[in-house]
Amino acid sequence: MTDTAVAPRTPLTLLGTGAMGTALARVWLAAGHEVTVWNRTAARAEPLAAEGATVAARAAEAVAANRLVIACLLDDASVGEALDGAALAGRDLVNLTTGTPAQDRARAAWAEERGARFLGAGIMAVPPMIGAPGSGGYVFYSGSAGLFEEHRETLAVPAGTRYVGADPGFAALHDVALLSAMSGMFAGIAHAFALIRPEGIAPKDFAPLLVDWLTAMAPAAHQSAEGLQSGDYTRDVVSNLAMQVAGNATLLRTAEEQRVSPELLTPYMRLMERRLAQGHGDEDGTGVVDLLDLRGR
Amino acid sequence: MTDTAVAPRTPLTLLGTGAMGTALARVWLAAGHEVTVWNRTAARAEPLAAEGATVAARAAEAVAANRLVIACLLDDASVGEALDGAALAGRDLVNLTTGTPAQDRARAAWAEERGARFLGAGIMAVPPMIGAPGSGGYVFYSGSAGLFEEHRETLAVPAGTRYVGADPGFAALHDVALLSAMSGMFAGIAHAFALIRPEGIAPKDFAPLLVDWLTAMAPAAHQSAEGLQSGDYTRDVVSNLAMQVAGNATLLRTAEEQRVSPELLTPYMRLMERRLAQGHGDEDGTGVVDLLDLRGR
Ligand SMILES: NC(=O)c1ccc[n+]([C@@H]2O[C@H](COP(=O)([O-])OP(=O)(O)OC[C@H]3O[C@@H](n4cnc5c(N)ncnc54)[C@H](OP(=O)(O)O)[C@@H]3O)[C@@H](O)[C@H]2O)c1
Ligand SMILES: NC(=O)c1ccc[n+]([C@@H]2O[C@H](COP(=O)([O-])OP(=O)(O)OC[C@H]3O[C@@H](n4cnc5c(N)ncnc54)[C@H](OP(=O)(O)O)[C@@H]3O)[C@@H](O)[C@H]2O)c1
Repeated sequence: MTDTAVAPRTPLTLLGTGAMGTALARVWLAAGHEVTVWNRTAARAEPLAAEGATVAARAAEAVAANRLVIACLLDDASVGEALDGAALAGRDLVNLTTGTPAQDRARAAWAEERGARFLGAGIMAVPPMIGAPGSGGYVFYSGSAGLFEEHRETLAVPAGTRYVGADPGFAALHDVALLSAMSGMFAGIAHAFALIRPEGIAPKDFAPLLVDWLTAMAPAAHQSAEGLQSGDYTRDVVSNLAMQVAGNATLLRTAEEQRVSPELLTPYMRLMERRLAQGHGDEDGTGVVDLLDLRGR
Repeated sequence: MTDTAVAPRTPLTLLGTGAMGTALARVWLAAGHEVTVWNRTAARAEPLAAEGATVAARAAEAVAANRLVIACLLDDASVGEALDGAALAGRDLVNLTTGTPAQDRARAAWAEERGARFLGAGIMAVPPMIGAPGSGGYVFYSGSAGLFEEHRETLAVPAGTRYVGADPGFAALHDVALLSAMSGMFAGIAHAFALIRPEGIAPKDFAPLLVDWLTAMAPAAHQSAEGLQSGDYTRDVVSNLAMQVAGNATLLRTAEEQRVSPELLTPYMRLMERRLAQGHGDEDGTGVVDLLDLRGR
């Protein structure tokens, strides 16, 4: 593309210049967007002025400056505080602030009552991945499809975009579900390192084996997805629950030998045993999902 | 390669023709090895006779038939039972049976006392991956380097080989460490599916996002390995423990909103909080490994 082919960039307002907000502002500025920023602690927004940002003294002023308003604050409560008293009518509010699905749904209703369109979001990236196309970082969006379509190109500047539905809570739900799964994986990684630690095995020799193994085994999620959709967890099972539970004894015994606390492994094992005791030894492990469901209890 | 270029294959004995033993025997037979098999329940070995295997009536007979003896039985106790009374002097015993590091170390000493060389092993594959080169399955080996070198080619027939040291327990340790990490990842995956389940999100639409995310985040293990080797968990931290603990509140709150039991997430969160309370908010998550260590408690 040549310069003459470049369309004018949408001007935008960014509320919050913490670690993530600052990374976002830099990338939009570098891409030629006019950016108005506001931060509760003004000193933290000042460095962006040197890069071409307009620094607003009050959040309401920043909101008044542009139709597209993006919030990247600590939590939902800080969004409420920052926008209290701002005129939102006709605004397109994109909430990059991490929250729960219910918080984003309530925030969407709140924004719509005030005449704004709303898009919830969940950032699947850390600041160094912002504006780094090869990093694999991206952002979930959900809520107003009109808003998303209209600002799609602008939203795609800092990171990839994935629109996951009209429900404004779905972006947060996807975000939290992925982070929760990652938390489980990190717990498993911590246990694995604790096991090898008393021995002369270098963590840096072991890590590549661990990464390759987890990468090879992650696609087991597809098998669970099939089961959850069909309701049958016994199809194409290569390692059934009865075998897995028997194998758990070796994992626990090894933890004991290596003097490693089993506390990160036992809750999952307990659920596998409960499912087995219910007569589901021929299933894969998907039945654990049923046991986590507290609805109707 | 032409037939005339093929070197004679090492004849071998395989004890145990369960699901895994049968898969192994088939692949060795297909590759042109003479295979003598034995199984406690003879009927389960019979089908292999039609594929060219010699079926021995007693384990001691099978052991007498070949220098290279491979055991793939249920557990360490069954290896002891099967080999009780067999003449092991001059034999090369490869134990593909899953056990703990201590079990494999004791079994190695036991075999060496009887004049055999010993190789412990850990199979990182399920039966359908045996003899399927592209499947990514492989086997850890540790113990006698001489045995491994001499039979390397034969051992490589069913799956890739990784020799991880002279300690006969290291193969089992690597095996169990990877399975433990996988167990954590599967727990996380179960929680993630439970979260999206009450909503109209199709598990099959969600699974690819989950697999991609876990694959992208697994390499965080390299950062922990660096920290464990240097002893400094504060280098190149992009998301520090204080931030992670704050984020956990959103995960727990979402679980509550979605009526999902938090039991698979809370043990890891509790350890993160303990480490934070010890004044390590500027670290990445690696300090949890220290808290799992029960030595000296
Ligand atoms: N950093 C990451 O790795 C990452 C990754 C994914 C998602 N996120 C999400 O991005 C959002 C921002 O994160 P961050 O890393 O930029 O955090 P941060 O560096 O701690 O910045 C927090 C921001 O929120 C503001 N704030 C806090 N309380 C406020 C209040 N009551 N009223 C108005 N403003 C308030 C802060 O203003 P002051 O400067 O005045 O304190 C600051 O601008 C969070 O929701 C976070 O979960 C971050
Ligand atoms: N299948 C997998 O996905 C997988 C993956 C990795 C590792 N492994 C490991 O491979 C080994 C074999 O697994 P498998 O899948 O083949 O199990 P399996 O199908 O249950 O077969 C078990 C084998 O052990 C024999 N056995 C049990 N108790 C015995 C005893 N007291 N004395 C003599 N033989 C006895 C059985 O003989 P009978 O026929 O007489 O009962 C049978 O040959 C296990 O250590 C397992 O952990 C399996």
